[in-house]
Amino acid sequence: MLNIRSSYVKTKEILYTLIHRYQPVARSDLADISGLTRASVSNIVKEFLQLGLVQESDKKGVGIGRKKVLLKINPKSIHVIGVDIGRRNIVATVYNAGGKILRTERLFSPSIKTLHESVEDVKRILSRILTWTHSKEIHIDAIGIGIPGPVDPEKGIVHSAHFRGNEIVNLKESIEISCKIPTFVEKDVNAAALGEQWFGDGKKHDSFVYLLVVEGIGAGMIIDGHLYRGVHDLAGKVGRFVFPAIEENGKRIFIFEEFGSEISALKFAEENAIKSKNGYLYTTMQKRQLSIGDLIDGFREKDPAAIEAVDSMAYYTAITVANLVFFADPDLIVIGGDFAGISPRFIQQVREEVETILNGHPLPELRASPIHDISISLGAATRAISEVASKKLS
Amino acid sequence: MLNIRSSYVKTKEILYTLIHRYQPVARSDLADISGLTRASVSNIVKEFLQLGLVQESDKKGVGIGRKKVLLKINPKSIHVIGVDIGRRNIVATVYNAGGKILRTERLFSPSIKTLHESVEDVKRILSRILTWTHSKEIHIDAIGIGIPGPVDPEKGIVHSAHFRGNEIVNLKESIEISCKIPTFVEKDVNAAALGEQWFGDGKKHDSFVYLLVVEGIGAGMIIDGHLYRGVHDLAGKVGRFVFPAIEENGKRIFIFEEFGSEISALKFAEENAIKSKNGYLYTTMQKRQLSIGDLIDGFREKDPAAIEAVDSMAYYTAITVANLVFFADPDLIVIGGDFAGISPRFIQQVREEVETILNGHPLPELRASPIHDISISLGAATRAISEVASKKLS
Repeated sequence: MLNIRSSYVKTKEILYTLIHRYQPVARSDLADISGLTRASVSNIVKEFLQLGLVQESDKKGVGIGRKKVLLKINPKSIHVIGVDIGRRNIVATVYNAGGKILRTERLFSPSIKTLHESVEDVKRILSRILTWTHSKEIHIDAIGIGIPGPVDPEKGIVHSAHFRGNEIVNLKESIEISCKIPTFVEKDVNAAALGEQWFGDGKKHDSFVYLLVVEGIGAGMIIDGHLYRGVHDLAGKVGRFVFPAIEENGKRIFIFEEFGSEISALKFAEENAIKSKNGYLYTTMQKRQLSIGDLIDGFREKDPAAIEAVDSMAYYTAITVANLVFFADPDLIVIGGDFAGISPRFIQQVREEVETILNGHPLPELRASPIHDISISLGAATRAISEVASKKLS
Repeated sequence: MLNIRSSYVKTKEILYTLIHRYQPVARSDLADISGLTRASVSNIVKEFLQLGLVQESDKKGVGIGRKKVLLKINPKSIHVIGVDIGRRNIVATVYNAGGKILRTERLFSPSIKTLHESVEDVKRILSRILTWTHSKEIHIDAIGIGIPGPVDPEKGIVHSAHFRGNEIVNLKESIEISCKIPTFVEKDVNAAALGEQWFGDGKKHDSFVYLLVVEGIGAGMIIDGHLYRGVHDLAGKVGRFVFPAIEENGKRIFIFEEFGSEISALKFAEENAIKSKNGYLYTTMQKRQLSIGDLIDGFREKDPAAIEAVDSMAYYTAITVANLVFFADPDLIVIGGDFAGISPRFIQQVREEVETILNGHPLPELRASPIHDISISLGAATRAISEVASKKLS
């Protein structure tokens, strides 16, 4: 059912988000941004101050006239743990309400485990990190988890499509029983989009897309200021885009991800390395199976096979970006993933290819995520902070 | 800037839309649907009744208890003209606020004109229809126009990408000067999506897509109850979807529309007809150049070349539908255009192909538009009605 965002609680939640995005910010600017009256903003801010969620910063001089009191989030008002569950890496980080990192624990698994096994790993590192927070007398208000989908963000149920085996786990319940802390689960790309909105490049944009190009390809979409999850929480599966086999004149269907993901770039690099019979990747291949990390190292070592694979990756990423522009026409597309992180050249290449494809069509801003390494865990923390704040505000 | 939908006017506008979508509807149900309190709903409805926008219907018995008063839009409160400007057909229709057709005027042009010439045609049929409304003493509050994009829906400026020549026209201004009636311009698919939301299959769906498959392919998207136009009013250009040339291992890019539109289906049918050297299409081709209308007639006459072309069309439409599902995960996809209208078989075929592609992924409802022939003009009228109501409510 359509939910009119007019109830008082919703308004408070939105205003709290706006303070996160625009801080330090004056009450008058909040009124302008939100479309609320100054009186409404003042009333709500008063409540924020009483709850300790927000604090007034030092007065800032503006010209020779009156000084404006600026508002910012009270960083100590909420503490959460943001967890990024990848296929091989699990990272758990303690954040305060200001998004500041207080402590991080990591766990690397050389092989891909089942979802159940991964959840046991999560419990282990949460237990380690909670021992630390306990010793520092930091109260953890909530845990936020980002994990590859499909995810039911209400119930916290996860399907193990990206892990070994075929399992369905109630991750929220499992962590809540183990840690006795309210837990919220979000699809990794959706978490990252929230993180970018509150703490990254999405702060000043109402509609933007976070595009993650890793072993799979997925997008988290903020539309008109809100995370858009889709009716079955499956929106943004841009890696699953299908296209027809033109040459065959038949009904063969290609899935985009089979060509544009890190996996296919690695395969492409391997083939080139074997053909050339030399270079960093070829030498490494004699010792062991290549990993994405090797591909990145090979790129840094200027191995031609690796460079060519990264070029191909930029080409496919550009196609995804162009299609996102045709579908969603966003302000900004933030690209996350290992490749976007390795060199400014990658984003520049993607931009050039996109310009060619779009052919005069307005281009969105295009950037590598500035918070790339932590965008999922910070985004998961963002969901947790927003849930804790909502509860305090209701 | 983010606009909190909490100002009183916005709330009234949303409630007015909800009465359109759910009428006849009780105040208590409106409160449940909107999340507003019953007191707020009652206050706003009181204003609607005073303005004459809404009327109370006959009391309806519910069990043996109290009878509920149901609300519905007062059909006579607003009258508008909805105009559908196609490349060859222009249709102008007088609607009342209840979406009832009072009169229609049409104009067919065998050739594609320039945008300026088309606008002159529009003025001609508007003048004809206004003579009629004048004689019937019907006051026209506004004109709504749906036209292929790109369109600036605020300023009413249209680029003639789909017409002959290369022109930019301020359509809003041109019609307002000519007719002295407030005019609003919307991209055809966006207008149709609004029409479906207020009067068609979108009434009960918060997120749905109107997919138009004609000479081009485009989508109008309702996301969380609101028309999503994109940052440059260019969202939903699904026909421009690009994909790589896999066989070539090169950087060739295909544009989807070149394969999946009516134009390509017609070309495909022509090639097949020439090969077979008989059938309805082949016979017609001896006399004149084939049109989309001939293809539809050929399909009705069971010409194998036409049937095969329609099958191919269903296949490409299914690819677009699948990509819309992966991208937006909507409740419902309404398919408009000549092919969707010609036979239930077409939609059934699309559904089967989509099921195969989605492979277990949840399917949205998939339907041919029930208001297909009028969805653009009714949608343009919807925009006009909503603008008139907004003005009365502010």
